[in-house]
Amino acid sequence: MPAPGILVTGGAGFIGSHTCVALIAAGYRPVVLDTLVNSDARSLKRVACITGIEPVLVRADVRDAAALDRAFAAHPVRAVVHLAGLKAVGESVADPLGYYDVNLAGTLSLVQAMGRAGVRTLVFSSSATVYGDSHPSPIPESAACNAVNPYGRTKAMVESVLADLSRSDGRWGIACLRYFNPVGAHESGLLGELPHGPPNNLMPYVAQVAAGERDCLVVHGADYDTADGTGVRDYVHVMDVAEGHVAALRHAARRPGVLMTNLGTGHGASVLEVVSAFERASGRRIALRIGPRRPGDAPAYWADARGAFLALGWRARRDLDQMCADSWRWQAANPHGFDDPAPAFAANLPRFQDNSGADTDANINSNVGHSHA
Amino acid sequence: MPAPGILVTGGAGFIGSHTCVALIAAGYRPVVLDTLVNSDARSLKRVACITGIEPVLVRADVRDAAALDRAFAAHPVRAVVHLAGLKAVGESVADPLGYYDVNLAGTLSLVQAMGRAGVRTLVFSSSATVYGDSHPSPIPESAACNAVNPYGRTKAMVESVLADLSRSDGRWGIACLRYFNPVGAHESGLLGELPHGPPNNLMPYVAQVAAGERDCLVVHGADYDTADGTGVRDYVHVMDVAEGHVAALRHAARRPGVLMTNLGTGHGASVLEVVSAFERASGRRIALRIGPRRPGDAPAYWADARGAFLALGWRARRDLDQMCADSWRWQAANPHGFDDPAPAFAANLPRFQDNSGADTDANINSNVGHSHA
Repeated sequence: MPAPGILVTGGAGFIGSHTCVALIAAGYRPVVLDTLVNSDARSLKRVACITGIEPVLVRADVRDAAALDRAFAAHPVRAVVHLAGLKAVGESVADPLGYYDVNLAGTLSLVQAMGRAGVRTLVFSSSATVYGDSHPSPIPESAACNAVNPYGRTKAMVESVLADLSRSDGRWGIACLRYFNPVGAHESGLLGELPHGPPNNLMPYVAQVAAGERDCLVVHGADYDTADGTGVRDYVHVMDVAEGHVAALRHAARRPGVLMTNLGTGHGASVLEVVSAFERASGRRIALRIGPRRPGDAPAYWADARGAFLALGWRARRDLDQMCADSWRWQAANPHGFDDPAPAFAANLPRFQDNSGADTDANINSNVGHSHA
Repeated sequence: MPAPGILVTGGAGFIGSHTCVALIAAGYRPVVLDTLVNSDARSLKRVACITGIEPVLVRADVRDAAALDRAFAAHPVRAVVHLAGLKAVGESVADPLGYYDVNLAGTLSLVQAMGRAGVRTLVFSSSATVYGDSHPSPIPESAACNAVNPYGRTKAMVESVLADLSRSDGRWGIACLRYFNPVGAHESGLLGELPHGPPNNLMPYVAQVAAGERDCLVVHGADYDTADGTGVRDYVHVMDVAEGHVAALRHAARRPGVLMTNLGTGHGASVLEVVSAFERASGRRIALRIGPRRPGDAPAYWADARGAFLALGWRARRDLDQMCADSWRWQAANPHGFDDPAPAFAANLPRFQDNSGADTDANINSNVGHSHA
């Protein structure tokens, strides 16, 4: 029996490429649909270095209905993991229409095409930003959605659309994954985050300071009401997040309805704790200076992670030290990202490792490079 | 100076055609963009009977970006009144994707085309359904939006998108009009509501019972906690609503930002009060029987109408008796809708009457049939 195909929109991006690794490890065959606007096709070569299987790439936009119909016709898939979207909060404030168009109208376009193709299993990349900044932590899934920026509102609106869809047609199985702060990289050092320009997020910035690419980390506020005064977030290893997608996919394929679930570790780490962990992992000193608070930043939030364990049997298994170690391995081995050749030690990696749960839907014992002719 | 052009999407429909009458009366020249999926182009002939001016009709869908660009190029307009959309609550529960596509993605498509055309004044037809059913009446605009069905959520989401757009670009002037229950018809008897199939709403149903087209009105619940046990709504004359659009257009053209405002009378009428008023207006007896409550119906709600008066200088001026009298005049003279010839008394009507406020942006003294070559 051939491995079941899964369409992964945005599959060449940071979370997408790691999710491809986890899907292949779990016996699925990802078909990546990506515009490559904010990602790099060479990430899929790295997926192949790790797993022996290079996902097919369909270069297309989820807003292009005809392209979606062609993709579903050419690549029969059982389910869709929908990660494609714009993700910078600040940019969403400046260009809300662009964000609503890509994230919301794009998802509408995708689910309509899924309906035409008879594919009704969907995992959607939502975000903890749907909660807004007024909830005490840990934040359970039952907390009200009060997103405070257009990016978060695009995610909350998509969740609402998908809930209505599920209520109207009981054949759909849908899981919305509310990511907290995915960081780190694949443990092989072959795959990681590739920020365009100065990183918006803490860990890639810290990694670049450790590597000497940037002089100094600016800490945005050290006078918050937290243990050390700096902001606290729920950092979660990207491979845990990737495996969460596999667990959510299995759930959605078996249980009609819609599930909203957090993907977080269930505890927070402060900026200074991240810096210390990164110093330990890298053996480098991270220069930092304290700057003013950034408008719109919440002091602290982290997930209630119990819902995901109850619903999916998933929990994050990699700690902050591993997030930093893997992030540093990726940064050190690929100072120029995918412009660097795949490190030589890749050949010595185990083919793949299934950390995504007990029940595998399909076995793969092929290392053929392409999944579809 | 030529009359300023206003693009009216959905301008051939019930509220749209009456809004065209009010716009022409106020010195504007409507350009109607409509698919005619749930409306009839002959409504625009009736607009011409009343006003002497027949709006140009562009038959197109707001989701068609190229068609919008062509429309803006061919018909220079100063502003857009966006009424096109799907509006049946029950249908939205069964087909949420269709509703999100037309109402939400359609509005995104429209405002993007407006941006390309440099038109940044917009009046949007929202709905009191954005409030949901948990607020005490009268409902002020500050009440939280908790829509309880997909139709209401499409309207709330569009409002949120437009608010984000306005925050991102101070050149936009936007007014969102939260209609309560528009009923009635133009006082000429030439223009009114044309339901396809059995009416979803009370007043056209009552009108059809009065006309002998239907046997009996079924009252959905007479055991509510209201004065006479039947449901209470804020019925507002469609010509008051139409004039509210003109007032909102003037507001939006002059004041950047986004305004959310109710269009209601500020008081409720029960089903039995509407039936009595209609019996008085028509001189007919309305047969009715009491049925069970309909799931999802709220017992009673009406608008806080003070905000609209403060912001726009607008308030509803026609009472329930006039709503019924005008509805009956339309029903009696046009039992087959626009299949009936325009009644002979149309020729004796005053050309038009401006009830929309004190300040007119332009005078018209032309009765030429088409506004643009």
